[in-house]
Amino acid sequence: MAEQQVKLLGATYSPFVHRVEIALKLKGIEYESVEVDIVNKSPLLLQHNPIYKKVPVLVHSEKPIVESLIILEYIEETWKDNPIMPHDPYEKATARFWAKFIEEKLTEIVRNVLATEGELQEKMVLQAKEALQVLEGELKAKDKQFFGGESVGYVDIVLGYITLWLGTVEEVSGVKIHDPESYPLIGKWMKDFTELPFMKSNIIREREMLVHYLGKIRQFALAAAAGK
Amino acid sequence: MAEQQVKLLGATYSPFVHRVEIALKLKGIEYESVEVDIVNKSPLLLQHNPIYKKVPVLVHSEKPIVESLIILEYIEETWKDNPIMPHDPYEKATARFWAKFIEEKLTEIVRNVLATEGELQEKMVLQAKEALQVLEGELKAKDKQFFGGESVGYVDIVLGYITLWLGTVEEVSGVKIHDPESYPLIGKWMKDFTELPFMKSNIIREREMLVHYLGKIRQFALAAAAGK
Repeated sequence: MAEQQVKLLGATYSPFVHRVEIALKLKGIEYESVEVDIVNKSPLLLQHNPIYKKVPVLVHSEKPIVESLIILEYIEETWKDNPIMPHDPYEKATARFWAKFIEEKLTEIVRNVLATEGELQEKMVLQAKEALQVLEGELKAKDKQFFGGESVGYVDIVLGYITLWLGTVEEVSGVKIHDPESYPLIGKWMKDFTELPFMKSNIIREREMLVHYLGKIRQFALAAAAGK
Repeated sequence: MAEQQVKLLGATYSPFVHRVEIALKLKGIEYESVEVDIVNKSPLLLQHNPIYKKVPVLVHSEKPIVESLIILEYIEETWKDNPIMPHDPYEKATARFWAKFIEEKLTEIVRNVLATEGELQEKMVLQAKEALQVLEGELKAKDKQFFGGESVGYVDIVLGYITLWLGTVEEVSGVKIHDPESYPLIGKWMKDFTELPFMKSNIIREREMLVHYLGKIRQFALAAAAGK
């Protein structure tokens, strides 16, 4: 089954799609990239993810798998070489815990920083800093180069998007979240992650284009909030 | 390792704790139940779940595992008898998808039904019905007694709480969400699930006490919203 055709429905700027790209590259899996229209919801997207209508969708042997964290687990279980998750159930539970934390705390909050202004935004920035602080503490406790240990694993892949997004969200929103002096280990982790071979390929898109794209999202979100 | 001491930190009314109890009972694992104070955050809770400070916490060989869905996966990987998840990676991804759907859509919305009134509550009731409709569709497509197939599995365990909660939330909030005529398969699933041996034990607490408890939560939530 693992040899069957692999297709990834994605969208250029989705950090969730990037997670799946990174995992596929780490595993050395060949795949076809299909850019879908997430605004007008292309028929291909509606067919493969009728409930959430979101990317990424991994289509393997014509079966769709959705939600980035679930796709990562599927990839790990289907292609066993170059493991990205620990084998031990407790360590695996710990990795899942941090992935969930990144998803529900940091990612959600960074999204809110982009979509708010004034006092509400200040509150979000503070929460984002608190989340970074918790991750800094975990890296310190772990005392390894990556959350996955000596090499990049599940948690690193889930967090990877911040290497590009944190700076661009800051620039677009006019705030400062990441302070290398307060979070030296996160700073080092970001540098190390960015220098990995798969990050030097086309996974990181043009930063300027992302700034432009996030700028439009922010405008739209603020206008929608003001119109309420 | 599987033979080491198992302790479950819980709270009587937590549907998330009940999930773990059900999985432990299905697997035939002996465990010690420890009721913790989730309002005043007992030191035991802070020690074992310092980030979320919530139950359930499964303590196995003195190591804490938190978040009910993650605990269920840990239980499945640690005690392999009486599997609650499919072995096939695609089926496993599908089970994880439905668990996430129940968690993020139904559970969150039912919680909101309890905490709102008026127009906002009507909107929440509508969303809860839509979520039930999606689950009804999945049961129909599956054409089996349970989401897990012929026997109870991961998705059934995650959804199990509605057999008690849906009716009590309706009673306390003065609304109707579940209509057996609109969702006949969900209705049958609820009946079948309730009749399972492990549901006849002390897992389902006194309904009247839950009504009283949820009534207090609703009062508190509405007062907090009004005070804003």
